[in-house]
Amino acid sequence: MTQRVVILGCGFGGLFAARALHNAPVAVTVLDRTNHHLFQPLLYQVATAGLAAPAVAEPIRRILAGQKNATVLYGEAQRVDLAAKKVVLEDGEELPYDRLILATGARDSYFGHDDWAPHAPGLKTLEDAFDIRRRVLLAFEHAERETDPAKRAAWLTFVVIGAGATGVEMAGTLAEIARHTLKGEFRRFDPRNARVVLVEGTDRVLPPYTPDLSEKARRQLERLGVTVWLGRRVTGIDEGGVQLGGERLEARTVIWCAGVTASPIGATLGVPLDRAGRVIVEPDLAVPGHPEVQVVGDLAQVAAHQPPVPGVAPAAKQMGRHAARNILAALAGRPAQPFRYRDYGQLATIGRSAAVAMFGKVHIWGWLAWVAWLTAHIYFLIGFRNRLVVLIDWAWAYWTFERSARIVIGPGARPES
Amino acid sequence: MTQRVVILGCGFGGLFAARALHNAPVAVTVLDRTNHHLFQPLLYQVATAGLAAPAVAEPIRRILAGQKNATVLYGEAQRVDLAAKKVVLEDGEELPYDRLILATGARDSYFGHDDWAPHAPGLKTLEDAFDIRRRVLLAFEHAERETDPAKRAAWLTFVVIGAGATGVEMAGTLAEIARHTLKGEFRRFDPRNARVVLVEGTDRVLPPYTPDLSEKARRQLERLGVTVWLGRRVTGIDEGGVQLGGERLEARTVIWCAGVTASPIGATLGVPLDRAGRVIVEPDLAVPGHPEVQVVGDLAQVAAHQPPVPGVAPAAKQMGRHAARNILAALAGRPAQPFRYRDYGQLATIGRSAAVAMFGKVHIWGWLAWVAWLTAHIYFLIGFRNRLVVLIDWAWAYWTFERSARIVIGPGARPES
Repeated sequence: MTQRVVILGCGFGGLFAARALHNAPVAVTVLDRTNHHLFQPLLYQVATAGLAAPAVAEPIRRILAGQKNATVLYGEAQRVDLAAKKVVLEDGEELPYDRLILATGARDSYFGHDDWAPHAPGLKTLEDAFDIRRRVLLAFEHAERETDPAKRAAWLTFVVIGAGATGVEMAGTLAEIARHTLKGEFRRFDPRNARVVLVEGTDRVLPPYTPDLSEKARRQLERLGVTVWLGRRVTGIDEGGVQLGGERLEARTVIWCAGVTASPIGATLGVPLDRAGRVIVEPDLAVPGHPEVQVVGDLAQVAAHQPPVPGVAPAAKQMGRHAARNILAALAGRPAQPFRYRDYGQLATIGRSAAVAMFGKVHIWGWLAWVAWLTAHIYFLIGFRNRLVVLIDWAWAYWTFERSARIVIGPGARPES
Repeated sequence: MTQRVVILGCGFGGLFAARALHNAPVAVTVLDRTNHHLFQPLLYQVATAGLAAPAVAEPIRRILAGQKNATVLYGEAQRVDLAAKKVVLEDGEELPYDRLILATGARDSYFGHDDWAPHAPGLKTLEDAFDIRRRVLLAFEHAERETDPAKRAAWLTFVVIGAGATGVEMAGTLAEIARHTLKGEFRRFDPRNARVVLVEGTDRVLPPYTPDLSEKARRQLERLGVTVWLGRRVTGIDEGGVQLGGERLEARTVIWCAGVTASPIGATLGVPLDRAGRVIVEPDLAVPGHPEVQVVGDLAQVAAHQPPVPGVAPAAKQMGRHAARNILAALAGRPAQPFRYRDYGQLATIGRSAAVAMFGKVHIWGWLAWVAWLTAHIYFLIGFRNRLVVLIDWAWAYWTFERSARIVIGPGARPES
């Protein structure tokens, strides 16, 4: 009988696993709780009104339409029953499997302070991106309505918490919006006076990079107009601002880029997890004692792998492909192989003509790194049309400083008394 | 002292009024409860996943950035105090005026059946468009999960109520999505079996057109795969379908294109309204007894005008410009002029290569009318970049039958048990 392969989640890990099974004599079922694969590295552009949502998201079933052995289902897994080899969905439906790949990724973590979440959205989904876009654009709108100088200053203060890749991108782009995009559009204040503060708990920005590149990145951020606060711990977030120990920062817009935790489905397996909720897997990505179940991407902790596999898109892709190859090996009666991450380099963008990149021992920054980042991201965007539209949007934005998606919609988009 | 001109609403009427005051020695304040001007004639394309939201919406303050006498405010008017010459906003703030232009338009009307609204969204705002997009795309997703044939058929039945221009566009495009766009993407049913039913209370589609064009439109709709039901009255709408007298249509997706009512701000004036809630204005668009207050667009009923001014974008633009000219006349000590609508023709699109158009006595249909429609709509889209992106999207869609914005987001976009 045809083996049933179930893949939970269609981010980079799940999608690349599904595609690598293209020619396999198996029945693939891909389950996702959205209808689209999201190109997460460019999500911050949706949040900062540079790109429309469809430019960074493709319907999963369009991507897999030509793969005849794949069925795409819209749904959410509630739990995995390892003993019965089945996945239970949100409405009680059961998906039996012979082989399972878990690829449901991570979500924002507020380190036990879930009460901060409503005041400091993170950036994981398109909904998050729309929420941030709405908050940022409406903050300037409220500032134009506000007559009290202190209250206006709070509307014009933007705090980004966490100086990893996403935090750095967000802060750099917010500064560009305030300094360039909105120039001349307000009558009661100058948007260039808006303040963007990037708060980081460690002593440098982009901690996964080398200290020299962290320093380059910090200088580029400051040149763009970002205030960088290092070694500062957030002790509270509420509607009106951020508390940093004894110090208070009045700010109506706070964005959380400080930490993630693994998707809760991992906890339903009943196997050991690490502190971030990730499933501790064997070197071949299998769940201990269950070679038929593999975990890939941000949900996996490959304990034996040194240095640790980073939580980035290329790692998820490689793990997804590797899990598929292990299934093909099993079908052919060959043993599963251990996963080995291949580091092709790391890139982080900061803003216009500002980025840093490490390719092994080669470190670059500034305009050159930015062009490398741009080329890589356009290249990896799935779907020809998306690439073309993104290119046009960016070329337009580069020359005009405009941003094409400055549209506020969704809940909370209307004025409230 | 500089005259204060307040404009409520920045649709076609309000925007064209504001722009026509470009060189006037007045202080213009434009108030809108969204941050964008919406190109409503193409909103159905956002609802049917053909265009991303930013392609049909531009930030109001970007459009008016260069107009130094204009201030844009994000807010919602609660009421107009004619005696005190001021507008009261949602938070109690007051906007005093010397001249006022009311241009807040219309919203959906369920003819006293407001309980139908949650089951049959209309198409007025970007939020509405996202709501319809979500319902339509998720209906196909639910059909793929559903195993009961009758329940699946209900997910695959789409009912559009009202065969005016919007209803005809929606029905034609939904049929195209089912027949072409989604082809080959589902494993458990054939999307070409989806049923699109267009229900109209009168005896023909596009009632404002001549009977010969209505008949052409009906035939084109049926060729695209739409089932057209004429002379049928809806007597009930619930979560599971539509009631038409004794007959029941099981359908999980119902779209309301059957009627509008004027924005509620008109009722706060304390002057006579017509049955649709529109303010009955003098021939020069002024509120009776208040020459300093004019009403334009869908909120106005120019009682003396024969034939009646249609509720279309060109009429709103002309009224907006006319109201501005009357203000300039008053500043120059000249009397206000009566408004006269100039009909340059009417165009309605139905689907791929299908449309009807009337230019005076010249009637065209089919491919030729569709090209005329396309040209006019691209031309009138505000902002060069939008036009370019729309052109690319449409050229792409025309050749591939794909739709570039098939992304489901927002509340209700996640599976529910």
